[in-house]
Amino acid sequence: MERLDYLGDERNKAQFDVEAMKVAWAGSPEAFEVCDRMAKLVANDPVFEKFSKPMLGRKELFKNTLRKAAHAWKLANDLHLTEEEAKWLRHYIDEPNYTDLHWEMFVPALEGQCTEEQKKKWLPLAKTMQIIGTYAQTELGHGSNVQGLETTATFDRQADEFVIHSPTLTSSKWWPGGLAKVATHAIVYARLIIDGHFHGVHGFIVQIRSLDDHSPLPGITVGDIGMKFGHGTYNTMDNGVAKFDRVRIPRNQMLMRVSQVTKEGKYVKSNVPRQLGYATMVSVRQTIVADASKALSRAVCIATRYSAVRRQFGSRNGGPETQVIDYKTQQNRLFPLLASAFAFRFASDWLKSLYTDLKQRLQVNDFSTLPEAHACTAGLKSLTTAATAEGIEECRKLCGGHGYLISSGLPELFAFYVPACTYEGENVVMLLQVARFLVKTVSDLGNKQPVGTAAYLGRVAPLTQKNCVVQTAEDWLNTGALVEAFEARAARMATGCCQRLAEYKSPEEGFAELSADLVEASLAHCQVIVVSTFIRRLQQDIPGKGVKQALEVLCYVYALFLLHKHQGDFLATCYLTPKQASLANDQLRALYSKVRPNAIALVDSFNHTDHYLSSVLGCYDGNVYPKLYEAAMKDPLNDSDIPDGICQYVQPILKQKLHSAKL
Amino acid sequence: MERLDYLGDERNKAQFDVEAMKVAWAGSPEAFEVCDRMAKLVANDPVFEKFSKPMLGRKELFKNTLRKAAHAWKLANDLHLTEEEAKWLRHYIDEPNYTDLHWEMFVPALEGQCTEEQKKKWLPLAKTMQIIGTYAQTELGHGSNVQGLETTATFDRQADEFVIHSPTLTSSKWWPGGLAKVATHAIVYARLIIDGHFHGVHGFIVQIRSLDDHSPLPGITVGDIGMKFGHGTYNTMDNGVAKFDRVRIPRNQMLMRVSQVTKEGKYVKSNVPRQLGYATMVSVRQTIVADASKALSRAVCIATRYSAVRRQFGSRNGGPETQVIDYKTQQNRLFPLLASAFAFRFASDWLKSLYTDLKQRLQVNDFSTLPEAHACTAGLKSLTTAATAEGIEECRKLCGGHGYLISSGLPELFAFYVPACTYEGENVVMLLQVARFLVKTVSDLGNKQPVGTAAYLGRVAPLTQKNCVVQTAEDWLNTGALVEAFEARAARMATGCCQRLAEYKSPEEGFAELSADLVEASLAHCQVIVVSTFIRRLQQDIPGKGVKQALEVLCYVYALFLLHKHQGDFLATCYLTPKQASLANDQLRALYSKVRPNAIALVDSFNHTDHYLSSVLGCYDGNVYPKLYEAAMKDPLNDSDIPDGICQYVQPILKQKLHSAKL
Repeated sequence: MERLDYLGDERNKAQFDVEAMKVAWAGSPEAFEVCDRMAKLVANDPVFEKFSKPMLGRKELFKNTLRKAAHAWKLANDLHLTEEEAKWLRHYIDEPNYTDLHWEMFVPALEGQCTEEQKKKWLPLAKTMQIIGTYAQTELGHGSNVQGLETTATFDRQADEFVIHSPTLTSSKWWPGGLAKVATHAIVYARLIIDGHFHGVHGFIVQIRSLDDHSPLPGITVGDIGMKFGHGTYNTMDNGVAKFDRVRIPRNQMLMRVSQVTKEGKYVKSNVPRQLGYATMVSVRQTIVADASKALSRAVCIATRYSAVRRQFGSRNGGPETQVIDYKTQQNRLFPLLASAFAFRFASDWLKSLYTDLKQRLQVNDFSTLPEAHACTAGLKSLTTAATAEGIEECRKLCGGHGYLISSGLPELFAFYVPACTYEGENVVMLLQVARFLVKTVSDLGNKQPVGTAAYLGRVAPLTQKNCVVQTAEDWLNTGALVEAFEARAARMATGCCQRLAEYKSPEEGFAELSADLVEASLAHCQVIVVSTFIRRLQQDIPGKGVKQALEVLCYVYALFLLHKHQGDFLATCYLTPKQASLANDQLRALYSKVRPNAIALVDSFNHTDHYLSSVLGCYDGNVYPKLYEAAMKDPLNDSDIPDGICQYVQPILKQKLHSAKL
Repeated sequence: MERLDYLGDERNKAQFDVEAMKVAWAGSPEAFEVCDRMAKLVANDPVFEKFSKPMLGRKELFKNTLRKAAHAWKLANDLHLTEEEAKWLRHYIDEPNYTDLHWEMFVPALEGQCTEEQKKKWLPLAKTMQIIGTYAQTELGHGSNVQGLETTATFDRQADEFVIHSPTLTSSKWWPGGLAKVATHAIVYARLIIDGHFHGVHGFIVQIRSLDDHSPLPGITVGDIGMKFGHGTYNTMDNGVAKFDRVRIPRNQMLMRVSQVTKEGKYVKSNVPRQLGYATMVSVRQTIVADASKALSRAVCIATRYSAVRRQFGSRNGGPETQVIDYKTQQNRLFPLLASAFAFRFASDWLKSLYTDLKQRLQVNDFSTLPEAHACTAGLKSLTTAATAEGIEECRKLCGGHGYLISSGLPELFAFYVPACTYEGENVVMLLQVARFLVKTVSDLGNKQPVGTAAYLGRVAPLTQKNCVVQTAEDWLNTGALVEAFEARAARMATGCCQRLAEYKSPEEGFAELSADLVEASLAHCQVIVVSTFIRRLQQDIPGKGVKQALEVLCYVYALFLLHKHQGDFLATCYLTPKQASLANDQLRALYSKVRPNAIALVDSFNHTDHYLSSVLGCYDGNVYPKLYEAAMKDPLNDSDIPDGICQYVQPILKQKLHSAKL
């Protein structure tokens, strides 16, 4: 029997080669092959079923996750998966669990912060999962401000040990994933104290649980911090709280690559540059940008497919109603998000190369690009996660009432995604870091030529003097004009802030007072990066019929959408006239009709399986309504026509016998 | 023992009489008294405990809700509560259930759409809850487009009956609350068909379940549509799906106030004006605006209190860190939301009076203000719900990582609130209705003087010619200047759209093409209404020391925040110069320091009980950290140190025995 494809007509409208677009999205034929293979492996394995997740209680949910994690580790071993493949396997399982922390935080921290001797001891144990680790930095009272952590690690010279201690309730470690119930070890960040002197915050390897019977070790009180947003989402993870009551560890369990404490209690810095730590941050944040594009692409895929299936209003003479994707208001909300998914995808590819370059430079003690790379990843982390969180919710709304059902996949995706705005650098804190970098760059312009993504600030004179020359809507289909507009706006906002900062008594006071404006200037700078990166990607070779053309349209949509959204900035800095801004908006609307025929094929290019999407509204074949109905019927409340509670609490009302009912 | 108040110092900073502000917020001393009494009644009754909700499975959750609903109905009877009091009782129980639909949709529909004879039969049954009703309009395939509904009601002359039928899967009724498991009756909207002719969509009273044993009646397939966003939220409600297989009802169960079907099968319109239906919509949407202010006030209360408790960075010489509420970036996100809560509160008060006025006019067949009242409520529904949904999520982010915990109360509040953007008129559809009204008003300017909230459009000539005269930041502290700015921007956007519409072949084509711009113009118009209403409220007497002054600051914050957010519009329409926009922003920032000392007392003025807030971060006494810890310890996963699944799925990994483990 042939499988019906309700979106077949839509797919036939595509003006490009969808297989080639899949490769462009994945980054390379090899990357596509690995992702595709791992996605299918997960989708076809019944252990990884996830539809029932929202109906499980916390304990069952957790147990189910442990099972999946064990099965995944077994698969990785049995199939001899590479690290890259295993990473994708975990990604497509789409369920946060303790192994995320183990592989993405614990192991890299050991690799980056251990001495060679320490690595020799700990890495083989970790890599074979004979120990399971987590990363215990944040505390009940401290998140962003690492230097304010309260946990202490006091050196006891006699015993040659550190004493790990939680002096207050707020010093309790709070949030580390896997800490509550699974992890056997944790890297605990604590204030190093030697002879009453504070030597900064350092990491220490602390065993949390017995390797025999898994019970918490003496002196350690550990538990789960409770339910989080959403049903499945991070409730599959045992985020933990831990209090340490003078827990002793050997001296050699301090992470000693950058600084050491000797047997005699001397605090010694090694010759390893401390800045290496920044490289790790750049690496982690680059992954977050890549994840943003994935999460947004999921939401956009669901909303686009459903918008093509759903019809509402506009029926003439009893004919079918209009597909909601044909309404300009729908296109105006949806297509910029589709374009954003691609923009973030290419930004993350480019960040990856930036990270590779940075690592190589740091190894030869070249720190010249570090501030710029650090600011740029912090900024893109903030920009992409904020836009993605908002974009997912917008996609949910674009699905109308049905988007509110768990079976649409969107509520869970949103609840799963939003912490990205807060973890690994709170988004506004990140933009303030970018602002510090911008202010410094602008102040140093006389002495130092800015590099990389800040290079355009070297042309600050022409950018602040020359205004836009666009005269027609078509003139906006010009990547040079667009880049210049974004650069000019960002340069003007940055220099404007710097001028106003100079009016304050102290730079710190000015920075605090103007912080809201500085955040806006930082965002403008970050948008320069994303728009330029998209454009540069299009200047490269992109194989496949019509692929580059389709991406060009999206690139214009992305840039012009931002320009319209932030037209206040462009007008306030006097780079654009109201007329030019209006022409940009005309062009944006005109572009939507070029996106429209490609819309379904573009979201197909993400190559998301129905398992991964986990959405009755976004299913590949578009057969939405029977799937909605079928999903509904699986709700536990449908186990019986007259569920528990009706006889006890409803019938006494109806029969007017409430006064004598036992409630 | 004295109760500690960690926010006591903050409360002492207030520059106004908080008890008087509570009355200003509630609307009157009487309204305050009722709300306060009902809130405390709920908070002190253990049956209404709601902390455990997120941990209950769907069936337990539902049963628990039925119990609360029965208890509430018993209380209402035992205490002889008025309708108003009972409504507040339900509000503070804070748990959607079937009685919402019964009282807020079923009973009003009977009251509004029944003939006197029908009312005599049905209202006594409904008001004593001998029958429980719901409102079955939307279908699987149809939401906004009521005229597109597929369910049929075919008149059978011989039997003097209507035959209610679901001809397709997409015609299944879908969403009605209470329908799935509780309601005994429903008002079912269906296409009336007599002798093969379609006579529009009408409502019919259909019995769904046996009043004896509660089982669904023959021909009716009914069930629950499955889980929705959030844990408790609307999962306490049995939103239902129903299919009708030629279900017969007597002819007199069509709601016949406006049109009748005679025994002979003649379709007759009564002399009751059809426009009466609009009054109902105005009434419902006015309630939604009031609910927006309540929901936003809840989120703002939590975020404000926690921002005063939470400290991060800025410690000098080992002293305490800075309260996060003192950061300008925090104030810049939080205080406009605090101001918005008040703005929406006053807008809803005013809408209530508009509704009263409208009802009186309609009763004497005066329809002159109807289009304006209808557009205005549709627009404010859209503006306030969209801003509230976004605002709640922003408040969640303002609480940092801990805002992601269910115990913060914010995730559940968000998940509970967001459907307001979609139900009772999807927000973008609402703004398009406003746009139609605006276009019509502007086109008719030559013939007809606009009234009410559109009156300013009668001054379109000066508003489009005269520009802003502000010269200093202080000049912006002028309500006249602010109202004029909002009116000028809105008038210019509306007339701009009208000019462009004229360039299209047909008005419909133009309206479709420019719909995204029209939506922006509509929003600008709605902002005029909210800003003006806030200002007019301040021109009235508001008793209490410092109350009016504190509200004035919030009014300026609200208006200047909107002005900055939408400065693109103000600049693009050339009403403001970049310099004037920048001065507005300076003034906005300066105002934050006037809000700061009042912040805690302002959120205290909402008079929310800790029960209602249901947030460890937002508790009145500010004793946040022990409460966070205590809430965490109640998670089911903390029942044991070594939960189910560890032995089976984690230990085989650690002990390297995965190959032989049974997964």
